[in-house]
Amino acid sequence: MAADSWAKSAKPLKGVVLDMCGVLYDSGADGGVPIPGSVEAVKKLKASDLQLRFCTNETQSTREKFVAKLQNMGFDISVSEVFSPAPAAAAVLKERGLRPHLLVYDGVVPEFDSVDKTDPNCVVIGDAAEKFTYQNLNDAFQVLIGLEKPVLFSLGKGRYYKETDGLKLDVGAFMKALEYACDVEAEVIGKPSTLFFQSVLNDMGIQPHEALMIGDDLVNDVGGAQHCGMKGVQVRTGKYRPSDDRHPTVSADGTVDDLAQAVDLLLSQRGH
Amino acid sequence: MAADSWAKSAKPLKGVVLDMCGVLYDSGADGGVPIPGSVEAVKKLKASDLQLRFCTNETQSTREKFVAKLQNMGFDISVSEVFSPAPAAAAVLKERGLRPHLLVYDGVVPEFDSVDKTDPNCVVIGDAAEKFTYQNLNDAFQVLIGLEKPVLFSLGKGRYYKETDGLKLDVGAFMKALEYACDVEAEVIGKPSTLFFQSVLNDMGIQPHEALMIGDDLVNDVGGAQHCGMKGVQVRTGKYRPSDDRHPTVSADGTVDDLAQAVDLLLSQRGH
Repeated sequence: MAADSWAKSAKPLKGVVLDMCGVLYDSGADGGVPIPGSVEAVKKLKASDLQLRFCTNETQSTREKFVAKLQNMGFDISVSEVFSPAPAAAAVLKERGLRPHLLVYDGVVPEFDSVDKTDPNCVVIGDAAEKFTYQNLNDAFQVLIGLEKPVLFSLGKGRYYKETDGLKLDVGAFMKALEYACDVEAEVIGKPSTLFFQSVLNDMGIQPHEALMIGDDLVNDVGGAQHCGMKGVQVRTGKYRPSDDRHPTVSADGTVDDLAQAVDLLLSQRGH
Repeated sequence: MAADSWAKSAKPLKGVVLDMCGVLYDSGADGGVPIPGSVEAVKKLKASDLQLRFCTNETQSTREKFVAKLQNMGFDISVSEVFSPAPAAAAVLKERGLRPHLLVYDGVVPEFDSVDKTDPNCVVIGDAAEKFTYQNLNDAFQVLIGLEKPVLFSLGKGRYYKETDGLKLDVGAFMKALEYACDVEAEVIGKPSTLFFQSVLNDMGIQPHEALMIGDDLVNDVGGAQHCGMKGVQVRTGKYRPSDDRHPTVSADGTVDDLAQAVDLLLSQRGH
């Protein structure tokens, strides 16, 4: 199969969903830097006839702060175009009348401002990083084990991520710890959850086969999108590793050097 | 089945293995208190023709300190009669030429004094309690993910235990976190590992069907012993919960009020 064969079937596409960290920018101690060509690639997509949304598992800040950071890097992006787990979780909690005990990063707490948190009857964990102390994990555990039917939400289920000073444990590891201790299965909100991808498609008003996901995470971006019926293309930036090309269960519809190349291939096939 | 039918088949028994916390004593902030009748029950077993060993997943102190605590409570017990995970792990590490990165409670570190810990090529975790910080978990994770083939040992795999101020997450939860992050399966040293029970039987020089385990933990004590071919009796002290009687996979050979009752039933059937 030619490397760009995915783009040749791009005609029926009506929308594109972009992962953010590792596709638009690389994170770092200073907030991160844009990946070369990505600012321009987003501009080209916006000028095309394709709809565009952004889909991230970022849970360390509010969408507002996160989007402001991207805008400062030069990206043409607005809050209403960005889908992230915390606002989705807040909506689910309200819909189901659940009152969360939160174990999340301080920066994301404001996303839950409008949610009743008294007398908790469920637990929500995100990438709490250094807030994952034994004491805080025990507090979350004690809430869960004290419920007749424990309900645990996890904002994503990543294993680990890369920071400038090395690999760091992600929320998925702590989700597994609480699942085991309480003999419960967490409900994952965020990628690769089908519900999460579906909410992005609903917002665009299009069907899964009309949408393409571009991400650096083979399992959570590409695999999650494919499981939902979308096409999934992987970029060789961010957390991409050559071993992804031999993954036992997930095979991308295409692999490209970076977002710039993906967008150029896509738009040239559509006659732009 | 009569509640004491297990004791009627006690004639072929040559040895008894006792769990410690929840059977001999209840733990607490002051080091714990003996369970009524248990000091006397141990005396009776020692005066009988049965061999006696103690088997614990305690990993917060050295065997020496732990046994001294029990002696102070009045128990007739010596270090050589006690089997615990840390010395077993130290033996395995030496046998296999492995150099551990330790994530364990400070009190148990001396059990690994004779083990080379330079340039680690495996990780050993125990019930590290408040030492389970995000930083310490990340350090252990980074050792594992840096190995070509990660090797993780877990000293027991308990979900949680009870302290005077509530339930606390046990080592098993953190084992699951590291297993998930590194895509590896931990080797469990301690109950319910068959290898661990077998080492106790080897020390007594008897076969599994000649031995009886008495414990308060249905899965790790009773189930583990039964899986090894021993009989397993549960006491209604310690972490026993009425729901244990309806456990989906483990069914004790007998259930008794406490160690005193178990020993009286056992010895009366043997004509003592």
